[in-house]
Amino acid sequence: VVLPNGDIWDGMRSLRKDNSGYDLKHLFVGAEGTLGIVTGAVLKLFPRLVDTAMAWVAVHSVPSALALLAQAQARFDTRLTAFELLSWSQVELVLNGQSDTVNPLSGEYPWHLLIELSDPRADAGLSDLIVEFLSHMSEQGIVEDAAIAQNQRQCDAFWHIRHAVSDVNKAHGTGVTLDISVPITAVPRFIEDADDVVKEHFPRAQVLVVSHLGDGNVHYVVHYAQALWDTIRAPDEIRQQIFDRIHDVAANHSGSFSAELGIGVKLVGEVARYKSQVELDMLRAVKNAFDPEGRMNPGKLLTMAPSE
Amino acid sequence: VVLPNGDIWDGMRSLRKDNSGYDLKHLFVGAEGTLGIVTGAVLKLFPRLVDTAMAWVAVHSVPSALALLAQAQARFDTRLTAFELLSWSQVELVLNGQSDTVNPLSGEYPWHLLIELSDPRADAGLSDLIVEFLSHMSEQGIVEDAAIAQNQRQCDAFWHIRHAVSDVNKAHGTGVTLDISVPITAVPRFIEDADDVVKEHFPRAQVLVVSHLGDGNVHYVVHYAQALWDTIRAPDEIRQQIFDRIHDVAANHSGSFSAELGIGVKLVGEVARYKSQVELDMLRAVKNAFDPEGRMNPGKLLTMAPSE
Repeated sequence: VVLPNGDIWDGMRSLRKDNSGYDLKHLFVGAEGTLGIVTGAVLKLFPRLVDTAMAWVAVHSVPSALALLAQAQARFDTRLTAFELLSWSQVELVLNGQSDTVNPLSGEYPWHLLIELSDPRADAGLSDLIVEFLSHMSEQGIVEDAAIAQNQRQCDAFWHIRHAVSDVNKAHGTGVTLDISVPITAVPRFIEDADDVVKEHFPRAQVLVVSHLGDGNVHYVVHYAQALWDTIRAPDEIRQQIFDRIHDVAANHSGSFSAELGIGVKLVGEVARYKSQVELDMLRAVKNAFDPEGRMNPGKLLTMAPSE
Repeated sequence: VVLPNGDIWDGMRSLRKDNSGYDLKHLFVGAEGTLGIVTGAVLKLFPRLVDTAMAWVAVHSVPSALALLAQAQARFDTRLTAFELLSWSQVELVLNGQSDTVNPLSGEYPWHLLIELSDPRADAGLSDLIVEFLSHMSEQGIVEDAAIAQNQRQCDAFWHIRHAVSDVNKAHGTGVTLDISVPITAVPRFIEDADDVVKEHFPRAQVLVVSHLGDGNVHYVVHYAQALWDTIRAPDEIRQQIFDRIHDVAANHSGSFSAELGIGVKLVGEVARYKSQVELDMLRAVKNAFDPEGRMNPGKLLTMAPSE
């Protein structure tokens, strides 16, 4: 890390355990360059994953998706390498907006999951295991329907639906995308409560959901078709209202307004809104300790109190 | 955390992802109470491990132990729950000093491993898997000999040898215990180089090794039978010489002088000796940011420069 005063800190250590002082490394991770500029990192490598199995799965509710996640984690542990939840509204938008996609299932179930298993051993037999697992989950009433990818082309087709989300949404309209995290078990109630808020306060918007469910991370999108958004007279105010109202719901469920995307300039106000005064003081004390003159990435992540 | 100024920081979040400011939590982990007093924590629970298999394994060298570790991790992933390396010198001291222990193997191989597999599923069949795995490793010439625990009593007997180490060593003499970590692949060269240092500078001492090999964490003990230690005229100086000389070896292998046990008072001098001036400045800046009056656990972990 190049520090604000020009010093260079060498934190390049490949140790699994090092209990010899404060954990400086984690201070710079996610600091958005406001404490110094990270110029190198040590990476841990994992064996290449050679066996893969994928399924596109329909469930009737978010609690069912959670139940399936728990079963899949218990059964596959670290071999569960993707568990992406999508609302039908989001899947439908992709299927209509991206001509080279097709619905992997015949019905229009309310919630869809993209599930991937991976193993570094070529003979792990994941295809058989995922069929057996999903059959069992179907018998238990957790899974409504499922399509198993039969080859790499079908795996790519499943991922293509997931990866087309951002482009399709942008082409169709304007969405306010929220990067929420909540405790994993709170995901169903967060979505339910957020949906109520949208119905009441933003009745013309459509909700699109993509969630890395295993992380409790919900990309909750309050989306307007472009023609509708263009009729809004004060779009910046509406955007901020959506931020605040949905972030309030996340806070009610002990969640965060920024799971993975960070603060930047856009969410600086939310830091002040949702952090306690004690925590704000601590964040500012760290900033002042490393960058008292405010040289590094000014205006990002944290506003300093005027008196400072 | 209760902070030095009496403020209470509520960091009790059960989120897997939260990218909404500097990572304050990790600052307090391992800070030994020098930044504040931790009064609560959120714990992540894992399923109870019900199936278990254990083996006591002999290998002829530390590189063989590393090769076995790599194979075991590839084969068992998170089901590998213990991989403890012991030198024969340490095993022998326990077998001689603790009357209710017996050597699980008939020979006196130079390096011994306690290996444990665990799985939350009762039908995981770990006993068969560990036999199959070790047979294969034996055919490849990595494993010299192995004993598989046949029941819980034998599992307990294996662990008993490992857990008796501290008491037996204390009863037998005085040891200077070093809590080294190095990159995992550097463990063999660290032990080799440290052995050379002991032979040259502390020729009357015996080396005892217990290592959590998967963490690159080596408890390297420079041990004297009590009668020998009692003849040493300046024991505190010898202790410090052992610290410095073996910590130098660890530093040469990009290692740490405190893997897991922390600094306390005993290693405060080593912090100043091995950290760069830049890093010391950073550690002191953090301490000053939270505890400018030096109220919290004074004298531990970090000495402040007199000018501060």
